[in-house]
Amino acid sequence: MEFFRRFSFYGALEPDLRALFDGNVRARRFARGEEVYRGECAGLIFVQRGRLCAYTLSDAGREITLYRLPAGEVCLLSASCALAGADFDVFVRAEEDTQAWLLPSEPFRRLAERSLAFSAFVNERMARRLSDVMWLLDGVLNKKFDARLAALLLEERGYAGGDRLELTHERLAAHLGTAREAVSRMLKYFEGEGLVRLHRGGVELLDVAGLERLASEKK
Amino acid sequence: MEFFRRFSFYGALEPDLRALFDGNVRARRFARGEEVYRGECAGLIFVQRGRLCAYTLSDAGREITLYRLPAGEVCLLSASCALAGADFDVFVRAEEDTQAWLLPSEPFRRLAERSLAFSAFVNERMARRLSDVMWLLDGVLNKKFDARLAALLLEERGYAGGDRLELTHERLAAHLGTAREAVSRMLKYFEGEGLVRLHRGGVELLDVAGLERLASEKK
Repeated sequence: MEFFRRFSFYGALEPDLRALFDGNVRARRFARGEEVYRGECAGLIFVQRGRLCAYTLSDAGREITLYRLPAGEVCLLSASCALAGADFDVFVRAEEDTQAWLLPSEPFRRLAERSLAFSAFVNERMARRLSDVMWLLDGVLNKKFDARLAALLLEERGYAGGDRLELTHERLAAHLGTAREAVSRMLKYFEGEGLVRLHRGGVELLDVAGLERLASEKK
Repeated sequence: MEFFRRFSFYGALEPDLRALFDGNVRARRFARGEEVYRGECAGLIFVQRGRLCAYTLSDAGREITLYRLPAGEVCLLSASCALAGADFDVFVRAEEDTQAWLLPSEPFRRLAERSLAFSAFVNERMARRLSDVMWLLDGVLNKKFDARLAALLLEERGYAGGDRLELTHERLAAHLGTAREAVSRMLKYFEGEGLVRLHRGGVELLDVAGLERLASEKK
């Protein structure tokens, strides 16, 4: 249970609730690309390694990324049935081979009902997700497409830990909620500007400072 | 304090916390059109009468309604400084003359830290708002859906030969090849915009011109 010590609530759990948590949480592995959540109520998922991606679908069937859940983050949506007031219609997929922990809905509910520290933790994570989605909405409404694409490339650079991103135009389009063609055109433009170099199945960032300038632009 | 008995947390507060709540909450009135929240941290606002509207702005200055807060609802955003993890950039305005109660940030924070019932209440309301904003985001990224629903309502109007359509949400969803929930939420949004009125087993069209404008919108 060493992994959970990083979460404030864990150290604050009284012995019986700690036992309830430890006795019910279990290790799960998800392969890259595996669908983790499709509406069934799994419970709370703690990401230990890898990354999950919460997305929704347009009625055209296009994927729209809501937010990403890297290591140390928690997936609340997969416990929505245990969250009063939640009415989500989203999916969660593993973006990388992911090592995680699942706390099933029932013990999740009991902990939220009995532990102030745990309830505060859920509250704080939900506020983060609400902030994420509002930020995304603001970006969609206010930011130019080239600025959003530049910001996404910089975010992916953080995940990849380098300038060479193994990412298809389809994935980038899904994260931006747009069409692949639009992404391909803009990437070609970026390449013409010397910001990136395109290679088979990926993008290499050549001018990070330039992308950062672009990402900070507004409409 | 009669008003607060409708909220589950209120009856569950221990005497000292009840006293903390009663001793700090105060009546507020907002005139129709008055800006209630512009980023300063007021605290938690309980709507007793009237209606508040949380919105964001596009750079073009266009207002985008995030959600409405009718009587009995609670405005969390105005207490965001007391919500760990919250990082919102929204505004709140009174849509009608509104009678409300304000619980300032500091007692709000203390109650959330000390009362499980209050923390659970905040959690539940935040999950509702997250659901609202996710749905709105989906609509914004997928504008075609509201246009298609508006077009369908106008088509059904032709069949019905009048503005009162006896049509279940299931039927409309079937026509659109989408989920009933999506239709129900969009119809609620239309109702909030004054385009339709929902009644048992049907929809009454109130603003045909508005629906026609919407139906002609391209993505």
